[in-house]
Amino acid sequence: MIGFFKKFPEYHKNDFYITGESYGGIYVPTLAYRVALNQSMNLKGFAVGNGVTDNRMDFNSYVHLTYYHGMVGPALWDEALQDCCHGVPIDKCDFYEQISNLTCCKVVNAIYNTLYNSGINPYNVYAECAGGVTQMNQLIRKSKPAWWPLFGQTDGYKVDNDIFCENDTALITYMNTLDVREALYIPSTLPDWDVCSDLKYTTIYKTMATFYKKLTVSGEFRVMVYNGDADMMCNYLGDEWFVDSLGLGRVGYRKRWLYTAADGTQQAGGFRQDYKSNVRYLTVLGAGHMVATDRPRKALEMFASYIKNN
Amino acid sequence: MIGFFKKFPEYHKNDFYITGESYGGIYVPTLAYRVALNQSMNLKGFAVGNGVTDNRMDFNSYVHLTYYHGMVGPALWDEALQDCCHGVPIDKCDFYEQISNLTCCKVVNAIYNTLYNSGINPYNVYAECAGGVTQMNQLIRKSKPAWWPLFGQTDGYKVDNDIFCENDTALITYMNTLDVREALYIPSTLPDWDVCSDLKYTTIYKTMATFYKKLTVSGEFRVMVYNGDADMMCNYLGDEWFVDSLGLGRVGYRKRWLYTAADGTQQAGGFRQDYKSNVRYLTVLGAGHMVATDRPRKALEMFASYIKNN
Repeated sequence: MIGFFKKFPEYHKNDFYITGESYGGIYVPTLAYRVALNQSMNLKGFAVGNGVTDNRMDFNSYVHLTYYHGMVGPALWDEALQDCCHGVPIDKCDFYEQISNLTCCKVVNAIYNTLYNSGINPYNVYAECAGGVTQMNQLIRKSKPAWWPLFGQTDGYKVDNDIFCENDTALITYMNTLDVREALYIPSTLPDWDVCSDLKYTTIYKTMATFYKKLTVSGEFRVMVYNGDADMMCNYLGDEWFVDSLGLGRVGYRKRWLYTAADGTQQAGGFRQDYKSNVRYLTVLGAGHMVATDRPRKALEMFASYIKNN
Repeated sequence: MIGFFKKFPEYHKNDFYITGESYGGIYVPTLAYRVALNQSMNLKGFAVGNGVTDNRMDFNSYVHLTYYHGMVGPALWDEALQDCCHGVPIDKCDFYEQISNLTCCKVVNAIYNTLYNSGINPYNVYAECAGGVTQMNQLIRKSKPAWWPLFGQTDGYKVDNDIFCENDTALITYMNTLDVREALYIPSTLPDWDVCSDLKYTTIYKTMATFYKKLTVSGEFRVMVYNGDADMMCNYLGDEWFVDSLGLGRVGYRKRWLYTAADGTQQAGGFRQDYKSNVRYLTVLGAGHMVATDRPRKALEMFASYIKNN
């Protein structure tokens, strides 16, 4: 990045933002922190969409949301409360903590399977599953439960890098085009690009709280966390809990925000909560994991509002 | 109806089903009960879609679902737990009961307003609001909170019969066409047809449980309750709780059901739980209040399966 600004000094004084989605929830704040330390770049802020933020909150909210989106029936839910919560109220029940308990683990596994084995698109529960149920089940057989590493049982499970119910053929084809690889300076010795390719990766952070706190303490950087609210993978509730838990202090109440629909009418884009230190949290109504793909008009107005700081 | 079968005796031995949506949740089982008592009609069962079933369950589930669909933020939710639940766990908290408490009432009112004043279509939270936010707000000013009669405060509130965010112009025009009125034997002395017209109506039943129990005790009639899961007005969760609370006994586990999408792939239609005494409960994934309008392919397969009893 430093090399880029050396090569193109005309961009040097421009406002500079870092944004990303999904696992970008890890990359974006960690990178933003590095960039912030370097005064030569004009960092103004960062934005994270449907991002990984905090393992515990992401996990617990996921269990709640599957039930409250009709994925889990009364029988399984009653079992979850009984086997995981042991009399602790559901809003305080820590499924993440209880997963090391085998009885609870089985119920949570069943909840995960309800979503992963039902042909539902976990990245947008109201969208179709690319290729249909048959295709999905093939992927599932290769997958491991996402929470499995929580208690160290990775043996016998191959990490599968396919994205459930999403058709990535066009993207993969594009990324492996010779012109694209050359334009991105990718050495020909490197293998083909793939979605979530098989990198050896070790989890370092279980929460991004420290980075957010470091980057928001001065109020110098503008931070936006946004979530398509139909995504179960990196769900809005966990991310909202996360932002709220930073203790920045809410500015006013959570309110709907508006956008202009294709027919010219004003429609609800979702909800927005502002926080002190230039932090804002937004939901994007009806969007899944890929907000800009699912709801481009809403995404455009949301980003424009962020850039214009209004 | 008896007159119909007298006039058209050729239909007399046909299987006869009664179905309806929304407030049909009251009309359908009460009518089915009357018809069942008359052996001259060959009643086989009844189906209710996004129906009113039980005031308490519909109301409580509504409060939960608004939070778990991103309509209500952490601040308001915390207030709801504090002012309505008084230490009772959320899954056992009876908002319906607590509404007579003014502090709780204010919070629940705010929750209702979040949905009704946000430009969100409460009949399908992921659909647009016909006419946009401005239009919606005009309707809202005439409306009363749905729960207001619960504690007798109806004074000063005009019951508004408009349907939030739905454009009923075509329907109203059609129903008031002279040909249609004549075909339905509607006397010319009666006023124009309107959506939810201003009938003087007094609530008799707070729950339909008694009727469902009477109609299911013999196992003779086949009952289907189904809900588009994106509807907040007569939501799936309250209706699922209701069917579950009849104590019929679940048959097997709740499972996804499949349908064939436009592209020929098999997709998840939603979830299904069978009960003893020929009762089935289904959710329709991604459909709002009007299931057949929102998800016609799913609706067709669901009804076909019901009629064929498979």
